[in-house]
Amino acid sequence: MRLAAILRHCTLAISIVLAASVSALAQSDPLSSWNDSANKTAITDFVKRVTADGSADFIAPADRIAVFDNDGTLWAEKPVPFQLFFALDEIKRLAPQYPEWQTTEPYKSVLAGDQKGVEASGMKGIGEIMAATHTGMTTEAFSARVADWFATAKHPIRQKPYSELVYQPQLELLSYLRANGFRTFIVSGGGVEFMRVFAEKIYGIPPEQVIGSSGVVKYEVGSDGKPFLFKEPKVEFIDDGAGKPVGINRFIGRRPVIAVGNSDGDRQMLEYTAAGDGPRLAVYIHHDDAEREYAYDRGDKLAALDKGLDEAVAKGWILVSMKDDWKQIFPGAN
Amino acid sequence: MRLAAILRHCTLAISIVLAASVSALAQSDPLSSWNDSANKTAITDFVKRVTADGSADFIAPADRIAVFDNDGTLWAEKPVPFQLFFALDEIKRLAPQYPEWQTTEPYKSVLAGDQKGVEASGMKGIGEIMAATHTGMTTEAFSARVADWFATAKHPIRQKPYSELVYQPQLELLSYLRANGFRTFIVSGGGVEFMRVFAEKIYGIPPEQVIGSSGVVKYEVGSDGKPFLFKEPKVEFIDDGAGKPVGINRFIGRRPVIAVGNSDGDRQMLEYTAAGDGPRLAVYIHHDDAEREYAYDRGDKLAALDKGLDEAVAKGWILVSMKDDWKQIFPGAN
Repeated sequence: MRLAAILRHCTLAISIVLAASVSALAQSDPLSSWNDSANKTAITDFVKRVTADGSADFIAPADRIAVFDNDGTLWAEKPVPFQLFFALDEIKRLAPQYPEWQTTEPYKSVLAGDQKGVEASGMKGIGEIMAATHTGMTTEAFSARVADWFATAKHPIRQKPYSELVYQPQLELLSYLRANGFRTFIVSGGGVEFMRVFAEKIYGIPPEQVIGSSGVVKYEVGSDGKPFLFKEPKVEFIDDGAGKPVGINRFIGRRPVIAVGNSDGDRQMLEYTAAGDGPRLAVYIHHDDAEREYAYDRGDKLAALDKGLDEAVAKGWILVSMKDDWKQIFPGAN
Repeated sequence: MRLAAILRHCTLAISIVLAASVSALAQSDPLSSWNDSANKTAITDFVKRVTADGSADFIAPADRIAVFDNDGTLWAEKPVPFQLFFALDEIKRLAPQYPEWQTTEPYKSVLAGDQKGVEASGMKGIGEIMAATHTGMTTEAFSARVADWFATAKHPIRQKPYSELVYQPQLELLSYLRANGFRTFIVSGGGVEFMRVFAEKIYGIPPEQVIGSSGVVKYEVGSDGKPFLFKEPKVEFIDDGAGKPVGINRFIGRRPVIAVGNSDGDRQMLEYTAAGDGPRLAVYIHHDDAEREYAYDRGDKLAALDKGLDEAVAKGWILVSMKDDWKQIFPGAN
């Protein structure tokens, strides 16, 4: 056969093989940790509708942006956001270098494991703990600290590495969206330099697709002529509440098609997403599973879902029940 | 033949066809507007070295980040950066709504086409012109204005659409890098919301890969319940000089492998890139072609290449001569 004939012949054969594989793939559920509920169907129907060639609601791949909150949306956030555990662990690790911490609040309470004492130090105390563990060093030194911690630290109550406290159904949702041409972003109140250390590894989300709160960073050149970026003890941007659509505009520059959150801090992100022209999907994850995870919403001190819950109901946003919609919460057996 | 046999047979045939195509592709030069100079070879050798499987200098695709300044690096910037032409054109377009502009500086000089008068208004005057044309509206209204302008405006001296004042060799370099697994970013002193309107169309760079200077943006909800982002007349971030590595850290979160600029405003970006571990490439575009483009460096008032020129020579950075290294400057015939 001449090359062209071989190619024609083979294209057909390969098409058959591919079609068989695609059909096999279609049969294996990409969202297998989701129960076959109305919410799951609403999500997959939406994705099919905006990605099917010829669909009236077709969205070009360039515009397929999906944004996810992190704490409580992609991984657990109880009893406190994990970044605070990092800070507390760092205070303990660094304590030998700072003997004065033994007698000074809020460090004294942290070192004594006195949670009430830490809480009593209020926002000022938490601010000091964050500054002592997140600033006064280069960006690279900070990343190395987070990486070291993440590799070995365990959740104090669940006694598991934090990488195992991600939500399995959400890992599947991220992959499913990416397989359908979406670019997935994290838009979180958490520290951007903290999350970027592990987001690629645990979620498949590269650093440039992680948006978060940040401190001021300064460019300096050392006496050895080597430039570095230095983390100063000054807040630059809080990526929470009304800051989330601002952060999305600043970093992505396009209104998302899909937004997923779990608390009132995500409300404006969902509002902004849902208010765009054409098909949009706003999703709240509702923590209603005290047995397998945690149950909290309106009254929660750190991550209340109150106004957002009302708005979700009023506007018909998807309200995912962790209890009813998720077959499994964490990777591995539950 | 059974399916598996067909597949084996065909994979081989397709491989032959593909190999032939790849070889044909290799023969068509992806940087055909570059002369076959030492600088071109240095760039292509670098890319081959960091992308070849098994190379000691191999860089994983995830880490292949290339950053480009915009004004004077990807398109021309003379006699003034094109964003200023946009602002001046907008003042003229908006003037009928502001009769007081006829008698108030700096507007009076802009409307009279009196360049010296505009210059005499200094940074304060330029600031007023920028505020009047870039703020006090939603982000979407601003984008629509830029899009309208970009579709019809012409460079006042060259009498060409701005989209034709991009550098053809750089379009090829961007494509070549992307074909080799690099993600290409703009890191420019220009306004981020301005550039994002056309960067995807003219450079193939999506909004989220455009980093630039920005003003404060505020999230608001209208009386109709619709949320919007409002551009306030307050500078938020200047992505120039030492701001460039800061912006790279903030938006990309990874040190680039390749950085390309053309002025002292890019010096810290090139320094920061070049100082990373492993293979890095710092490139300056030198405007030395008065005949086909412009010739300027040390003494230039708006875009001097002075300290950067010394540093490039001292550190062995690539100094691209537009005159000698570029066969062609703009798309189409020169």
